[in-house]
Amino acid sequence: MAKRHPLLADRTETMNPSAIRELLKSLNVPGMISGAGGFPAADSFPVEVIRGLIDKVLREKGAAVLQYGITEGYPPLRAALAEYVRERGICCSPEEVCVSTGAQTAIDAASKILLDPGDCMAVEAPTFLAALNVFRAYQARIIAVESDEEGAIPEDLERVLDAYPIKFTYLIPTFQNPTGRTLSRRRREKVAEILVRRGALAVEDDPYYELRYRGEALPTLKSFAPDNVIYLGSLSKVFSPGMRLGYYIAPPPFQEFMTTSRQAVDVHAGHLAQAAADEYIRGGHLKACLPSIVELYRSRLETMLKTLDDCLPEGFARSNPDGGMFVWISGPAGFDAVKAQREALSKKVAFVPGGAFFADASRGGNTLRLNFTLVPEDKIREGLAILAEALASAL
Amino acid sequence: MAKRHPLLADRTETMNPSAIRELLKSLNVPGMISGAGGFPAADSFPVEVIRGLIDKVLREKGAAVLQYGITEGYPPLRAALAEYVRERGICCSPEEVCVSTGAQTAIDAASKILLDPGDCMAVEAPTFLAALNVFRAYQARIIAVESDEEGAIPEDLERVLDAYPIKFTYLIPTFQNPTGRTLSRRRREKVAEILVRRGALAVEDDPYYELRYRGEALPTLKSFAPDNVIYLGSLSKVFSPGMRLGYYIAPPPFQEFMTTSRQAVDVHAGHLAQAAADEYIRGGHLKACLPSIVELYRSRLETMLKTLDDCLPEGFARSNPDGGMFVWISGPAGFDAVKAQREALSKKVAFVPGGAFFADASRGGNTLRLNFTLVPEDKIREGLAILAEALASAL
Repeated sequence: MAKRHPLLADRTETMNPSAIRELLKSLNVPGMISGAGGFPAADSFPVEVIRGLIDKVLREKGAAVLQYGITEGYPPLRAALAEYVRERGICCSPEEVCVSTGAQTAIDAASKILLDPGDCMAVEAPTFLAALNVFRAYQARIIAVESDEEGAIPEDLERVLDAYPIKFTYLIPTFQNPTGRTLSRRRREKVAEILVRRGALAVEDDPYYELRYRGEALPTLKSFAPDNVIYLGSLSKVFSPGMRLGYYIAPPPFQEFMTTSRQAVDVHAGHLAQAAADEYIRGGHLKACLPSIVELYRSRLETMLKTLDDCLPEGFARSNPDGGMFVWISGPAGFDAVKAQREALSKKVAFVPGGAFFADASRGGNTLRLNFTLVPEDKIREGLAILAEALASAL
Repeated sequence: MAKRHPLLADRTETMNPSAIRELLKSLNVPGMISGAGGFPAADSFPVEVIRGLIDKVLREKGAAVLQYGITEGYPPLRAALAEYVRERGICCSPEEVCVSTGAQTAIDAASKILLDPGDCMAVEAPTFLAALNVFRAYQARIIAVESDEEGAIPEDLERVLDAYPIKFTYLIPTFQNPTGRTLSRRRREKVAEILVRRGALAVEDDPYYELRYRGEALPTLKSFAPDNVIYLGSLSKVFSPGMRLGYYIAPPPFQEFMTTSRQAVDVHAGHLAQAAADEYIRGGHLKACLPSIVELYRSRLETMLKTLDDCLPEGFARSNPDGGMFVWISGPAGFDAVKAQREALSKKVAFVPGGAFFADASRGGNTLRLNFTLVPEDKIREGLAILAEALASAL
């Protein structure tokens, strides 16, 4: 980049538009097979259901849902969500649930009220790229907690909490982004025990909860340590990402400060969108639509895993997700995922090199993330054949 | 407030949820006549038009507008807005317009990329409360530029720019919030000349541009100094605030960094809402709906001004807005607007004491802001009679 503009704040030094921008541009190329984004399948959206619900809301509630709303969210939706998360082991009143402009705005709000420049906070290594960008924007010192196939390693979390004054630990326990891994029940209990014993705080980001394709649902971390967890949920995967709806359940005083912070950012989530989501949950449409979404993604995941097992070059390994949207690939030492990306993009296949998911830029150069929800199965097979060649070429 | 939680960031010391919260609560009391908020009249919303447009968009574009979009905004809406702002003297390409989750998110993004803790920035005294809260959240040192009936005083802006290393000056030149004042053409030219000569930056917040009830439209500050102004527009007053749509036109590299910042905050404005707004502008509905909105508010403003002139106690003065949503009242020295607020609230009339609009908490104790757009004319008369008594009681 050219010389920095003198008016820009220091935090912009950590903001790198080009990486993401380059990727987004690539996705607009006709014929591109994209395993890059974290997009739900467009054919999973219940368009006609949503069309009917929005029409109903506008007929019945009219101007009220076009007006400003309160920052905490549309009260009926907050009540519906409080009921909805009970099966996750979360017991809360409607007043304890707040609706945000996507879960991303809630990650921003939690970070804004907790992080001073130079403060330490912890993440799984690797973790969600856009969450890292939030923590960087608040100039946090990001400390890695190591993870394996069973998720974040509790002993390493304890080591990190011993070694650094950690403000909070950001975790995606279920179908993690980017690895697809799930924190085991045993480890959930252990992590919760650590949090409670130390009076420590975690942000549990849980956007994929509903997207389980095999195995039994696990209770949330929040259910084991309600006073120590800021819980984030999303309606992007089971309703519509374009509607920008997430929610958070945070212990006081964090909930109050997150909401106050949001009064000066998004003000409130879209009012009509919230009213439509309320009808979607309350009217049983979510429960009715979910099985076909899960079935669609289960097939795509199975196709991706089977194809990977057939075509991955020697020395490559994949994660084994029970749900979510991503599979994580690790290559042998010396494999260069960025080089493989260039090669794959030239043949119209996109993925994200794994380095982007580590706070430490020197890590993850031999890893990559693949999304399996967006692309139909024949395209998954076609794309993975090209990917396998690109991987082999970058050894 | 009780002892602060040790995990909270320093910035939360400037976040005071109770003031706004108290006000919002008061507005839910049945029978309350509210001159407090900045709400458009619910009866100004073109509900049936919007219902038709959303249905059309979902029928024609379906899943595409329920999917994630790019952070910069829905491309057809960006093109429609580039065309729409031409009459404001702003010449820009569609790529130079970005859509945000309300203009508030754009104020946040601009502040986030420009302000380090302790940085100086300038505002008109008084100015928009929620903008002050953004600047406080980024721990800026907020410097006041004095204003009078003609708006911000250019000589005082020059004094402030001489005395402090100002990152940017936040201005609402047209129908200012909270005063309703408009920066005169002569002063616009002068302010632009100062910005250009010094290579200084201004954020021009222009949410009320369309709401002119008398006089001729003035060119925007942006039109006089395009390279020195980040321009913010809003669709909240002429489409729907509940849809959360604003837009910004910023010189490079600020536009790029604002968008990168937003990738980690709102991600993008509601996709369906953007598509509906595009149809609303492009289909001529905005132009068709605007005259009745303007007529409704013109009558309410005239009623408020006439009633105030009849009932304001001796020693009180009011501003003389040509548009927008607010009238500003100044009382004599010794008048206590907070005391008057308590008195008025007990009789179910709400307004905002003026102190909230000054960065310096010791100022504005004898002032208050009244909104005239939300409440029908008979209620304006009824509310102002009660207000006049409350004012007299707080002398």
